[in-house]
Amino acid sequence: MFKVLKKSKKSKARLTRLITGHGAIAGPFFMPIATKAAVKNLTAQEVKDLGAEIILSNTFHLFLAPGSKLIKKAGGLHKFMKWNGPILTDSGGFQVFSLSKIRKIDEQGVIFSDPVGGSRHLITPEISIQTQKDLGIDIAMAFDEVIGFPATKEKVKAAMERTTRWATRCQKTRGNAKSPLLFGIVQGGVYKDLRIKSAKDLVQLGFDGYAVGGVAVGEPREKMKQILAWTIPLLPEDKPRYLMGLGRPEEIVAAVKEGIDMFDCVIPTREARHGRLYLANSKQLTVNSSRFYKTINITNSKYKTDLSPINQTNLKQYTKAYLHHLFKTNEPLGMRLATLNNLEFYLGLMSEIRQAIKKGIL
Amino acid sequence: MFKVLKKSKKSKARLTRLITGHGAIAGPFFMPIATKAAVKNLTAQEVKDLGAEIILSNTFHLFLAPGSKLIKKAGGLHKFMKWNGPILTDSGGFQVFSLSKIRKIDEQGVIFSDPVGGSRHLITPEISIQTQKDLGIDIAMAFDEVIGFPATKEKVKAAMERTTRWATRCQKTRGNAKSPLLFGIVQGGVYKDLRIKSAKDLVQLGFDGYAVGGVAVGEPREKMKQILAWTIPLLPEDKPRYLMGLGRPEEIVAAVKEGIDMFDCVIPTREARHGRLYLANSKQLTVNSSRFYKTINITNSKYKTDLSPINQTNLKQYTKAYLHHLFKTNEPLGMRLATLNNLEFYLGLMSEIRQAIKKGIL
Repeated sequence: MFKVLKKSKKSKARLTRLITGHGAIAGPFFMPIATKAAVKNLTAQEVKDLGAEIILSNTFHLFLAPGSKLIKKAGGLHKFMKWNGPILTDSGGFQVFSLSKIRKIDEQGVIFSDPVGGSRHLITPEISIQTQKDLGIDIAMAFDEVIGFPATKEKVKAAMERTTRWATRCQKTRGNAKSPLLFGIVQGGVYKDLRIKSAKDLVQLGFDGYAVGGVAVGEPREKMKQILAWTIPLLPEDKPRYLMGLGRPEEIVAAVKEGIDMFDCVIPTREARHGRLYLANSKQLTVNSSRFYKTINITNSKYKTDLSPINQTNLKQYTKAYLHHLFKTNEPLGMRLATLNNLEFYLGLMSEIRQAIKKGIL
Repeated sequence: MFKVLKKSKKSKARLTRLITGHGAIAGPFFMPIATKAAVKNLTAQEVKDLGAEIILSNTFHLFLAPGSKLIKKAGGLHKFMKWNGPILTDSGGFQVFSLSKIRKIDEQGVIFSDPVGGSRHLITPEISIQTQKDLGIDIAMAFDEVIGFPATKEKVKAAMERTTRWATRCQKTRGNAKSPLLFGIVQGGVYKDLRIKSAKDLVQLGFDGYAVGGVAVGEPREKMKQILAWTIPLLPEDKPRYLMGLGRPEEIVAAVKEGIDMFDCVIPTREARHGRLYLANSKQLTVNSSRFYKTINITNSKYKTDLSPINQTNLKQYTKAYLHHLFKTNEPLGMRLATLNNLEFYLGLMSEIRQAIKKGIL
């Protein structure tokens, strides 16, 4: 199910292969985000054509609309959205924390309000995993309790310990089925002893993969490297490692060097919708350089008359001036083209990272 | 440049072929609308793949943004938006009337304000045609004065006569170049004698094609048939005839039977963005039937659990429930899929119309 094909001698980077019920994925890899059963502005076919081998969707959103029962009836999320490759779903733990007003959180689970309609709902570890099973996805995430930064050590400890207890309940709900794979989520905030305790306890329970969670919740960016340095040595070599919700290209490269195999992030798709384009600084990405890419905002007036191509690859037929025009006149094609550019950049970055590991230069 | 390949014995319908600098178009045909150098939500390639042979863009909008000078510098509108088939541009006459606050209209032209930024601009017949020449398009429309309904006969007459005088100035600006083709626009409101006078005067001047304008400006729908019946017999057999801005499928069929060869309308693309889908009532469109199609609004709650395919053609892989979900959760892919459905329907309708004329049943 998971193989480390090569380990770098220069860093902790690994070349990996993860096999799921809907195909294999070469790692390290990036998962484009299809929160509500669609990558914003793109068809599943386009995402595949860009080179994505797996996408991420959100239990929280699909639980609220259209509901996992309907998706199950439709033959599962793959069939519903016409993506036939692997899918990972986040458990809802992070979204309950970041998007909704939490009404009550206790040992049973979380009562929260729908950020759109306001209606009340309960998600427990059992409900989260059952929902993910109903969706028919390939990799399920355990339901965790996420705490923002800053928070007292006491609170972080309590949430971490609860996350571990909930992880056991997630395992029970998953049962003995081979699919979905179930990943545990290491919590513990910025506290070394808590991260170590969380990682050790989850490894003791035994999961198909391990995620580093509770990051990108407001903590200083320099804490990330520390968290990875504390956590990763405790995770089994023969299981995939997933850093949740990050990040900028240089953060991804740095995390790969710390031994991370899997990434997801809203940056390429969300920033595309605001006109921010990720572009390589040279024809061939050299991921060891700190300046291997640049970002531009296509809405900037200097692009109004820029007749150079948007990029040298999938959008070479369009000029920056055309994309500027589409954004300035609110033509929806603009966001779509920007999304195509940014996802291609991120997926190309991962391909370059894999090449660099293969060549022994990362 | 233009051929009538077959004339129906059952109606005035004609099977035609119009040759432009960017290729030939089988008629009767429908022009998808790419107002601001993009068909909303679609790439030019997708529009081509749907079977469109020509698109329509708007001088008014492109004059304001990004400006015809930039598009000329970019190598013309075809290159700018990556559509390599024929393009017709409306002259701006209708949009000055429908979209902007007119500051002053006199024999020279129209001073109007940009509906977005409010800045003042002048469009004259000369400026309109020169702009269209700069865009490098294939069919230019004469700059006309459009009057709403109702209006006094005196006002309609004055605008019609001015439209004819302006048409002469448009011809002068076009000069002897073979491209763009220049079409005159018959005005005259709902008044028989004015329509007849307008048509006769324009035919006297001699254009590459003739449009029936000043329709869909608020007049009763039953007036349309009368206007066509007065006008079309006066237009030369060997020139294309274009009914501007219409219409619903049954209106298009009716106008084809009156001898119209060319159509454009925002209905398929605009209504798609509101979730209204045009669907054939049977596998094979039978355009002689009055109930050959239906419309549904995909946002209606009854489609929430409808797992039947959106249509039997280009979207058969997606369910209505999925499209409902995309609309309800504001996923931009929803508008895109609905647009693909509706344009395919309209272009398919035109194909069925051509087949029906060929078979002698329309």
